[in-house]
Amino acid sequence: MRNLVLVIEYDGTDFHGFADQPGVRTVQGTLKDTLQRLLQEEVQLYGAARTDAGVHAHGQVVNFYTAHPIPVERLPIALNRLLPSDLKVKRAFPAAPEFHARFSAKSRVYQYTLYTKTHPSVWQLRYAYHAPHPLDIEAIRRGASELQGTHDFRAFCTEPPGERSTIRHLYRVEVCQSQTFIRFIFEGNAFLRGMVRLLVGSLIQIGRGQRPPDFIRVLLTSETARASYMMPPQGLCLIRVKY
Amino acid sequence: MRNLVLVIEYDGTDFHGFADQPGVRTVQGTLKDTLQRLLQEEVQLYGAARTDAGVHAHGQVVNFYTAHPIPVERLPIALNRLLPSDLKVKRAFPAAPEFHARFSAKSRVYQYTLYTKTHPSVWQLRYAYHAPHPLDIEAIRRGASELQGTHDFRAFCTEPPGERSTIRHLYRVEVCQSQTFIRFIFEGNAFLRGMVRLLVGSLIQIGRGQRPPDFIRVLLTSETARASYMMPPQGLCLIRVKY
Repeated sequence: MRNLVLVIEYDGTDFHGFADQPGVRTVQGTLKDTLQRLLQEEVQLYGAARTDAGVHAHGQVVNFYTAHPIPVERLPIALNRLLPSDLKVKRAFPAAPEFHARFSAKSRVYQYTLYTKTHPSVWQLRYAYHAPHPLDIEAIRRGASELQGTHDFRAFCTEPPGERSTIRHLYRVEVCQSQTFIRFIFEGNAFLRGMVRLLVGSLIQIGRGQRPPDFIRVLLTSETARASYMMPPQGLCLIRVKY
Repeated sequence: MRNLVLVIEYDGTDFHGFADQPGVRTVQGTLKDTLQRLLQEEVQLYGAARTDAGVHAHGQVVNFYTAHPIPVERLPIALNRLLPSDLKVKRAFPAAPEFHARFSAKSRVYQYTLYTKTHPSVWQLRYAYHAPHPLDIEAIRRGASELQGTHDFRAFCTEPPGERSTIRHLYRVEVCQSQTFIRFIFEGNAFLRGMVRLLVGSLIQIGRGQRPPDFIRVLLTSETARASYMMPPQGLCLIRVKY
């Protein structure tokens, strides 16, 4: 059995998220069905990140084991012929047997995009959140700088607190402003459910003056406080997974 | 009654074209309904170009007459709040009573985009035609250069020949190649139904070596020959209308 890796991209608009669920159109389900059709064998597909409904990916990574002899360099063309227009394979390569798209990942890079022009643009509304009102970018940057490092991010999770650790490490938090966009870039070892969208939402509350500049610190250190302003999914994109 | 002009943009993917038709979702119908809802009066809407189903617009122009006192600079924000995410107003301004979006137009600029990378991209498939195979760009340019000027374009029309003139003037035909795209730009006084997509299709047949380099001249001068290779709509965009 070979262990093969695919780097895929998808427009999340019309998917009910990455993770396979019966009866709805998901990225994992669509790709698994297509692989099984091509390879004529049952396939288990492992993904690096479980992106939510409406979230996009420029570089999601999956792996699977196969006994099929297809040359790995043929896989993108053969799969792309069968895949729908909103899910495509960018690269395919062989990996060591122990490689696992999720557990071998060192970090994930997510980007959240705000479109800041006055009028909404039809070319941006699928891929960015329209935020035409002024934001205090320096206050946002101060809040964002509190996030770097190892913290308990339990306040930034849409799942109820359970047994599992909510401690994560953020290597990089960047806020990039251009004439048209504000982009938030987060690189972390792993992310909780809804974490990026709750982080960006809380930063935007600071940028609007609805929350004080130390709001992020309060959320990171309080036992009970919870972030509540969650950004919609279309601005979020899984940019890359690093190994 | 004021005569008001709107510059609009739309992602044509989910519209059955610009022109109002009963029972289907069209750009003109959607915009007219929204205007009527906002202004609480019946509106006649005139468009500069009748783009086909699936064709996009960066700068379509429409005009309408209204007795409503709304300040014209409020119109984009008020309309964009009600319009769907794939149709938005970019600008609004008043015009002289005799201005007509269609009949006053001096020229229309269309762009057709090919995405030429090996693997299809989900970010491009809505807005470009994937053409990964090599094309003889010099042969395409020679063919394109025959198009400039005044010609009878009856061979490049999807409607059956009728009483109306099929003579049009092309001011500008450009073929721009980058590492990722080939873009065809056509500026003309007016265009026949399907004309740009048939022109690009014929040029691509030349670029693939399926037709001789003088194919365009043959089609422009023959009484009976017809272009038959029509490009799909998603690569086409109405860029601008000039007055």
